Amino acid sequence: MGIFTKDIKTMNDLFVHQLRDIYYAEQQLVKALPKMAEKATDNQLKQGFLTHRDETKTHVQRLEQVFKMLGVDAKAVDCPAIDGIIEEANEVASEVEDKSVLDAALINAAQAAEHYEIARYGSLIAWAKQLGRNDVASLLQKTLEEEKATDQKLTKLAESKVNLRAAS
Amino acid sequence: MGIFTKDIKTMNDLFVHQLRDIYYAEQQLVKALPKMAEKATDNQLKQGFLTHRDETKTHVQRLEQVFKMLGVDAKAVDCPAIDGIIEEANEVASEVEDKSVLDAALINAAQAAEHYEIARYGSLIAWAKQLGRNDVASLLQKTLEEEKATDQKLTKLAESKVNLRAAS
Repeated sequence: MGIFTKDIKTMNDLFVHQLRDIYYAEQQLVKALPKMAEKATDNQLKQGFLTHRDETKTHVQRLEQVFKMLGVDAKAVDCPAIDGIIEEANEVASEVEDKSVLDAALINAAQAAEHYEIARYGSLIAWAKQLGRNDVASLLQKTLEEEKATDQKLTKLAESKVNLRAAS
Repeated sequence: MGIFTKDIKTMNDLFVHQLRDIYYAEQQLVKALPKMAEKATDNQLKQGFLTHRDETKTHVQRLEQVFKMLGVDAKAVDCPAIDGIIEEANEVASEVEDKSVLDAALINAAQAAEHYEIARYGSLIAWAKQLGRNDVASLLQKTLEEEKATDQKLTKLAESKVNLRAAS
């Protein structure tokens, strides 16, 4: 996309642009999640990050399938939002001394990423349907469900165990 | 917070740090929302952004009340995540030629910001309760409800009108 040109002329252009944005975001998360797993102390959290890394790899593949279905190049565009979310996660994590508190901070960081994706996939699904691509919408819906499930698992883990330990 | 020191030693430190992060984010949104209102074409969307700017000012004040209740300085810390979300919103908006498509892009951008806040306030409320500050949790809960309501209003506006017009 050009900096001085208005390259997004139609809803379809916006749709493809935002698919490329989330394609970049998912790729960054495939790299970030194992680092978060390394930092985590709680075993269930560590394992949860690795499981979600595997799911995230599937999300990347699903997006590649969507690009193919739409007949456009599977290209990533920069996504300053996910870069900011990951940068902030690293910054906060580097400032935490206590391991239990770090687990709480890591969950918080991961939930910011999940919610970013939930917002993006929500719009992408609505746009796909509007553009008459229910086939694409169903595929993206699978990813959205997994992002929501991960967010809920993180909340449960925080509230049942991690926060309690961090506050003690 | 220092770059080379581990300033977050307790759950309470993490809580205050993340309050300062969202305090910064809310302040940035107070500035960003009127600019989004200016760019919007649909009147209901334009008005929605302005109403949420007013709500966001209340969120800033509520956070100041929370800082007072906790006896800590009302200070903001940099929040690369919200900076990234706003930067991305501006980038995409600048690339859209068609006004109806721009409205769809603006809703998408606003929902990314709402979801960032929903994730952050969700953790902050859980942490406040864990730290025995139900009074603070109730105050933050009010803001969370307003962020969720805004997100739902945006979805409704997108699906009932804006996406339809953008795709036509």
